[in-house]
Amino acid sequence: MAQEHDLDPAFPLHRGGKIEVRPAVRIRDPEGLALAYTPGVARVSQAIAADPELAYDYTWKSNTVLIVTDGTAVLGLGDIGPLAALPVMEGKSLLFKEFAGVDAVPICLDTTDVEEIIDTVLRIAPAYGGVNLEDISAPRCFEIERRLADSLDIPVFHDDQHGTAIVVLAALKNAALLTGRAEADLKVVISGAGAAGTAVASILVADGVRNVMVGDSRGILSPERGDLNDAKSNLLLATNPTGFHGSVEEALDGADVFIGVSGGTIAEDAVSRMADESIIFSLANPHPEIHPEVGGRHAAVVATGRSDFPNQINNVLAFPGIFRGAFDVRASKVTRSMNLAAAAAIAGVVGDDLAPDHIIPSPFDRRVGVTVAAAVAEAAREAGVARKGVE
Amino acid sequence: MAQEHDLDPAFPLHRGGKIEVRPAVRIRDPEGLALAYTPGVARVSQAIAADPELAYDYTWKSNTVLIVTDGTAVLGLGDIGPLAALPVMEGKSLLFKEFAGVDAVPICLDTTDVEEIIDTVLRIAPAYGGVNLEDISAPRCFEIERRLADSLDIPVFHDDQHGTAIVVLAALKNAALLTGRAEADLKVVISGAGAAGTAVASILVADGVRNVMVGDSRGILSPERGDLNDAKSNLLLATNPTGFHGSVEEALDGADVFIGVSGGTIAEDAVSRMADESIIFSLANPHPEIHPEVGGRHAAVVATGRSDFPNQINNVLAFPGIFRGAFDVRASKVTRSMNLAAAAAIAGVVGDDLAPDHIIPSPFDRRVGVTVAAAVAEAAREAGVARKGVE
Repeated sequence: MAQEHDLDPAFPLHRGGKIEVRPAVRIRDPEGLALAYTPGVARVSQAIAADPELAYDYTWKSNTVLIVTDGTAVLGLGDIGPLAALPVMEGKSLLFKEFAGVDAVPICLDTTDVEEIIDTVLRIAPAYGGVNLEDISAPRCFEIERRLADSLDIPVFHDDQHGTAIVVLAALKNAALLTGRAEADLKVVISGAGAAGTAVASILVADGVRNVMVGDSRGILSPERGDLNDAKSNLLLATNPTGFHGSVEEALDGADVFIGVSGGTIAEDAVSRMADESIIFSLANPHPEIHPEVGGRHAAVVATGRSDFPNQINNVLAFPGIFRGAFDVRASKVTRSMNLAAAAAIAGVVGDDLAPDHIIPSPFDRRVGVTVAAAVAEAAREAGVARKGVE
Repeated sequence: MAQEHDLDPAFPLHRGGKIEVRPAVRIRDPEGLALAYTPGVARVSQAIAADPELAYDYTWKSNTVLIVTDGTAVLGLGDIGPLAALPVMEGKSLLFKEFAGVDAVPICLDTTDVEEIIDTVLRIAPAYGGVNLEDISAPRCFEIERRLADSLDIPVFHDDQHGTAIVVLAALKNAALLTGRAEADLKVVISGAGAAGTAVASILVADGVRNVMVGDSRGILSPERGDLNDAKSNLLLATNPTGFHGSVEEALDGADVFIGVSGGTIAEDAVSRMADESIIFSLANPHPEIHPEVGGRHAAVVATGRSDFPNQINNVLAFPGIFRGAFDVRASKVTRSMNLAAAAAIAGVVGDDLAPDHIIPSPFDRRVGVTVAAAVAEAAREAGVARKGVE
């Protein structure tokens, strides 16, 4: 077993973990110890006890996010449990710091019960600056996010929903621009009605796309479906304005855009019936619903979730800058307008480099984090959820 | 307010917090990202899902401790709440890393309910390698520690109890040596029957000291007291073998050792009635129960909790090495024998430098952490709680 692992370079890279907690100040002598620890620290603690807002100045709260998962919907792996989810959370933490200077602490919960998850996060979150929910399966993730956001006065952000949605919207804005279409007029078919599909549909509708259809394994959500849970019924209210009833592949007839966030495979025959100059985002990892080679034969723009093809739709373009911007103005929540601002900012970074194989910036484009942060901070101020100005 | 704070160097030192979460690996390009994050991380997660013990190899679990507090008994400040406790927890985290390379994450709980604290820790601890309980008031701390240790298969250690007790025992061993006494024969009076006093009494008794008396604000715990709670009644079973009834100051008549962990003041008159060549550990911060100047007039050895007097009894001599040693052998718990081994190791570091003003090593003596770790690891193996050998 150990030998097998050693043949895969991912394993030695992960040995001992990918993140660490380090002193941000150096304590070299008794004088330093007497300031950073007792007795000096007591004066700082007393000041915060008298004025809790000072925690933002004199602790790491102002720059720190909890990455909370229960391990039920990890990447394409599904319910692998909290401990097996930890490497993914460490990866997120690493990216938070690398791309936006945000300190991120993984919390892998040994429960999948909605009430227990909410109770636990409410008890540990107040000493942190924000909560990034991660890889929690639908529909539980919707209630968990909503109730935490309602109860806490710090940003709560479910990355699988909103991070994905923001980057998809950014990519779609540029793909529409490139193919000379108005975003509002696009006919969009989304395969996947879980956390990501729901959030993508919602943000597209919120940004003015009029015809969005969402399908699950039983077909497009429509009024004729009698099997929809509450989350999907709500989603139907905002989507499928023509009342289309049928499969995802049938819905692709004449569609401008396919967005896959579900896994599975779309037949090439269905892809070929999409509109001219179509746009395909096949985001399932590691197996895109439509392989880029297949997509390339029929579409003007093809994007995937993979780093080894052009146009990688990667949440890392969004979540670090979102929290950086929210933290910079001490935002009390993440509003939809902040998400929309982030998407526009990501799209804007591409600028004159816009091309069919470059509709979205590279994760290593250092402009992304700061640009997103500035746009999000400004949107927070406009939304009235910023508690301080930018320094 | 801000100006006041700026005149105290503790405040600028604390600005933005004292710790950070950093990548332990550098990701500079898409290839690195594809190993540390998707798709590479998925293979590591799958391996851990198949064999959870691999989390010790491929995540930070093996080196990471949660510092858990509810903010009810912070330093000498008392119940200042979880947010105001955060600077203290950041200080502990800093010391864990600086002195033993242990990664420590502060969890400041927004609840003081025993059941809620236990439930919360049980849900978040499995992805961490250990739990350091901190500044939780007695008697709740006893039940919380016991039940968490029973339920979890990782070390659980209440530092205010055992960290203090270990360092006090280390100092007492050397003070007895210096004054030519056998440890077992010492008559010891402890002022304070909370977390620290209880643990100090217990470790002294466990190490063979026969006559230990413990007092609270109403006097020495004795069979004649009708006001003892369960924790104090249990403590009485192991202490006060002569059935002494009276105040702490009365108990000092002829006593060899005074250990103060309570605050308050002991009258010089009482100090003067202690045995010749007496030993005084006045650990209340910032105001020792017996000021070192007063103690120095009557005792052979004086120690405090302060860094600006000789012989600082400082928990930092214990907790980093305890967890380092426990982590090095993947100990499933911290046994009393591991605590006793740590105390002996700390005392031993002083060696030939033993003197009335040097009964305990400096916190900056780099030998302490490694020596304690080695002794604790060995004791864990002997106790049968080590799950792996030292590498």
